[in-house]
Amino acid sequence: MSRLYVVGIGPGKPAGMTLEALEVLESCPVIAGYTVYVDLVKERFPDKRYLTTSMKQEVERCRMALMEAAAGQDTAMVCSGDAGVYGMAGLLMELGAEYPQVEIIVVPGVSAVLSGGAVLGAPVGHDFAVISLSDLLTPWEMIERRLRCASMADLVICLYNPSSRKRKDYLKKACRVVMEQQRPDTVCGYVKQIGRPGQEFGVLTLEELAEFEADMFTTVFIGSSRTKEIGGRMVTPRGYRLEERAR
Amino acid sequence: MSRLYVVGIGPGKPAGMTLEALEVLESCPVIAGYTVYVDLVKERFPDKRYLTTSMKQEVERCRMALMEAAAGQDTAMVCSGDAGVYGMAGLLMELGAEYPQVEIIVVPGVSAVLSGGAVLGAPVGHDFAVISLSDLLTPWEMIERRLRCASMADLVICLYNPSSRKRKDYLKKACRVVMEQQRPDTVCGYVKQIGRPGQEFGVLTLEELAEFEADMFTTVFIGSSRTKEIGGRMVTPRGYRLEERAR
Repeated sequence: MSRLYVVGIGPGKPAGMTLEALEVLESCPVIAGYTVYVDLVKERFPDKRYLTTSMKQEVERCRMALMEAAAGQDTAMVCSGDAGVYGMAGLLMELGAEYPQVEIIVVPGVSAVLSGGAVLGAPVGHDFAVISLSDLLTPWEMIERRLRCASMADLVICLYNPSSRKRKDYLKKACRVVMEQQRPDTVCGYVKQIGRPGQEFGVLTLEELAEFEADMFTTVFIGSSRTKEIGGRMVTPRGYRLEERAR
Repeated sequence: MSRLYVVGIGPGKPAGMTLEALEVLESCPVIAGYTVYVDLVKERFPDKRYLTTSMKQEVERCRMALMEAAAGQDTAMVCSGDAGVYGMAGLLMELGAEYPQVEIIVVPGVSAVLSGGAVLGAPVGHDFAVISLSDLLTPWEMIERRLRCASMADLVICLYNPSSRKRKDYLKKACRVVMEQQRPDTVCGYVKQIGRPGQEFGVLTLEELAEFEADMFTTVFIGSSRTKEIGGRMVTPRGYRLEERAR
C-alpha cells in the first residue's frame, strides 16, 4: 500500500515546518502542490520529482497526487500553513475514496491563526473563531451570519482571505457586521506576509480596520471585548477571571 | 536586552515541534515550564537549567521566567501545543510590562485543534471555533453562550478541556446546547493523548458524544451540518459549493 501524505509546511519560512513534516518530505520521492508552496521546499530538496498545478486547480492537483501514489510512489502534497485548515486534506479524502490502495496521512502544520498570532503577541489566548472571507466556495450570507454569531459570542475572530482583487470591500463589510456587537475601539491586528521577507504587522481599532487595505497575503484578527493592546501588541487574556488571579 | 521566548512545542511527540522551536530551545541556557511539558524536552537537552512549577501556578511560573530573563539569561518557556492558544504568551505579556528590559518573543506551535484534526482526517477543513469547557477562568454561562452562537453559525466546534474530575458532565451539557441547533447525527470525533503513546481516536454522532467519557487529555470535535464521515475519518469539505466543483 502506498502513501499519500498531506503536509502542512507552516508559514513561509522553512523553520516554520515541524520536524515530522521535514522527515516526511525527505522520505517521499514525489512532492505535489501549488507552485508557490512547492517553490518553498524545492531549494531544500532539489532531487525530488515535482508535480505542480496553478491556483484554483485543487481537484486536478489532488487527482494527480492520488494517481501518483496509486501507481506506487510515496507522495507528499504540500499545503501552506496547516494541511487541514482550508487545505487539501479534506478534498483528498473525498476524492481518495476512489483510490482504496492509497493510504492518506495528514501531517499538521502551523496555520496562519497561530503564526500570525505569534507575531502580534497573543490575540487567540482564549476562545476564538476562524472564518474565511472568500465567497468562492461559500455564499456571502453564510459568511455574514458566521461573523454575526461569532461576535455575539464575544469570540476573537481570525479572518483568512480578507481581500482579493474582486472583493476589495469585504473586510469593511465584515467589520461593519462585527460592529453591530462590538465597540468601534475593539483591539484588532493584522499581519502581512507572515514569516516571509517583508513581514509587517500592526495593532489598530475595529473602526480603523474597516478602512484598512488588506491583500491576499494578510491575516486579520478582531479582538473580543477583553482583548487589550500591551506595548504595541495584541493580547487576549486567558480567562475572564485572570485579572484577579494575576494580582 | 535579554530574551524570553514562549515556545509552543506541539503535541506530545518531539517531531511535532517546529524547526524554529528546536533552534530556540537549543540556544537558551534556561528552560522554564510546567513539569509535564518540561519533561518532554529534557531528554533532548539534558544540559539546560530547568525551572519548573506544578499545574495551576501559571503566574508564579511566568514571574520566575521573567526574573530569570531580567537577570540576563535567555530563557525559553515551553507550552504544550501552541504558545498562544490557552498558553502562557498572553499572561507573560501582561506581567512582562513590569520587566521592560526583557524582550518577549512568541514561537508558535501546532495546537491540538490542528494535531488532533490531522489524526481524525480534516474536521476543521472550513470555518471553525475553538472553545474551552474549563470554567476555572470563564463563567459557564459564557461558555454556553459561545457554544450556542457557534452552532447557530454552523461552525465546526473544537472543544479543549472537555472534562476533568470536577466537571464530569460538562461535555454532555455542551452537546445538549449544540443539539438545540444541530442534528443528533451530526458527525463528531475525539482524539485522546494526541501524538503520545496510547493515542486513540474515534468518529461518532453528536448524540453518542453526549454519552462519551472524555478525560483531561481528550480533544473533541463537533462537526458542522456539512461534516461527513469518510472511511472512518471526519471530514469537513472546504466550501459549500465544493461538491459541484469536485464532480
